[in-house]
Amino acid sequence: MNERTVFFVSDGTAITAETFGTAILAQFQIPVRQVRMPFVDSPAKAMRAVEKINATYQKEGVRPVVFSTLVDVDVLNVLRNNCEGKLMDMFSAFVQPLETELGVKALGRVGRFPDITRNQAYHDRIDAINFSLAHDDGQSARNLESADVILVGVSRSGKTPTSIYLSMQFGIKVANYPLIPEDFERRRLPSALLPHRKKIFGLTIAPERLAEIREERRPNSQYASLANCRMEVSEAEAMMRRYDISWLSTTTKSIEEIATTVLQHVRRRNRHHD
Amino acid sequence: MNERTVFFVSDGTAITAETFGTAILAQFQIPVRQVRMPFVDSPAKAMRAVEKINATYQKEGVRPVVFSTLVDVDVLNVLRNNCEGKLMDMFSAFVQPLETELGVKALGRVGRFPDITRNQAYHDRIDAINFSLAHDDGQSARNLESADVILVGVSRSGKTPTSIYLSMQFGIKVANYPLIPEDFERRRLPSALLPHRKKIFGLTIAPERLAEIREERRPNSQYASLANCRMEVSEAEAMMRRYDISWLSTTTKSIEEIATTVLQHVRRRNRHHD
Repeated sequence: MNERTVFFVSDGTAITAETFGTAILAQFQIPVRQVRMPFVDSPAKAMRAVEKINATYQKEGVRPVVFSTLVDVDVLNVLRNNCEGKLMDMFSAFVQPLETELGVKALGRVGRFPDITRNQAYHDRIDAINFSLAHDDGQSARNLESADVILVGVSRSGKTPTSIYLSMQFGIKVANYPLIPEDFERRRLPSALLPHRKKIFGLTIAPERLAEIREERRPNSQYASLANCRMEVSEAEAMMRRYDISWLSTTTKSIEEIATTVLQHVRRRNRHHD
Repeated sequence: MNERTVFFVSDGTAITAETFGTAILAQFQIPVRQVRMPFVDSPAKAMRAVEKINATYQKEGVRPVVFSTLVDVDVLNVLRNNCEGKLMDMFSAFVQPLETELGVKALGRVGRFPDITRNQAYHDRIDAINFSLAHDDGQSARNLESADVILVGVSRSGKTPTSIYLSMQFGIKVANYPLIPEDFERRRLPSALLPHRKKIFGLTIAPERLAEIREERRPNSQYASLANCRMEVSEAEAMMRRYDISWLSTTTKSIEEIATTVLQHVRRRNRHHD
């Protein structure tokens, strides 16, 4: 089957259009070529996008699919009236039913702040990213009281990408601490963590998978050996049980899935504390 | 006006449902309370979600809005048949038209890999995140030949969050280097970068904004003073002009917007080199 070209057109970054479109396309087992078209925020730019889409149709002989999150009515109309691709107009599909439901007219224009960096939620997110970076891998025990969650686990169990994703996507302040052989010998958590036990969440991983990941970084090392990975994982899980720490196995999970699970835990805990 | 409760229901992380739903809701200037319901992947879990939604309706007296990215038909039908909220069924809205257009039936079930971590694109993304973290803030000049892009700019111009976002979202390997007073005195880029000039992209920022950001970190410092920020930005921009480096002002832009612009630049450059 020929590859189908899919365009993601947006007046913003096109990240939403691409994320959603990709999820829908995963329902169809066909090969696709994806083209992102961000910042299409004027009728003139829309016309250039249309020309590109129509030229692709001409060249490939198959109608391209066009996912649009265009909001501005004037810009969107350029696509509606001129685009020869199959238009998947994501906004219009839901805007009209929502107008009826909410009893409010949609803005019909990009509802973006003129300066996003002045937005409090955005500011908090950047703060959270900086916090998580400064508190990666046990780098700093300062300000742990500001952390929303503290991840612990053996080296390469997924703490760092999860921490960063949590702050980037959800604006959560995350510290992470490796559990290392010294901790296992002492059979105690790093002492900096003891006052913050309630905030700790554990990540674990199957020793076989851990050995593979470590082998990529340090081939043929003691660190990566299966025997060592088995020992570390078993000790880490014993430690988490000892301290009654909730934990999750990351073995087959994506960063997004791990982060979502951690977030559910944090929210549930906060509700209990309220 | 009363707050309207909005649910995001998904068999996965609900991140797509939330991102898209939030973008749509930004079109309506009404106060909303958002509730994410991830991992609703069985009819039994769907029934529990429905109970929660219907109870909210009872309690608040206003019909909740429910954005769903449920894919599995059996799970989705539980919502269709029992949910008293206003259902925004994102998948169905586009699946049927796409079936017609593509001449292929949709899977009708979650098209997820049983083990996402075995997926090559996922693996590359994790590699990119690790690369970007190891090459943050000029930490390492090793393997710069593997970088897809090298960001330069004065301290606090947005290099670190942009680098991480680019690798996290787009799987791009990013190194970033601060431009510092020593570089300005020598009127030369850090020497580690010279062999990789073609890969460099610059970030700049209005001195007034930079002074604000630095002031939050180091109040009343020479580093944060407007005079110093003006000097550094002016020197950095002169440096970029001298080396014919493309650049972007981050002053009023979100990480997503900066990253999307950098990515467009990288793709355009790669096309020219092909």
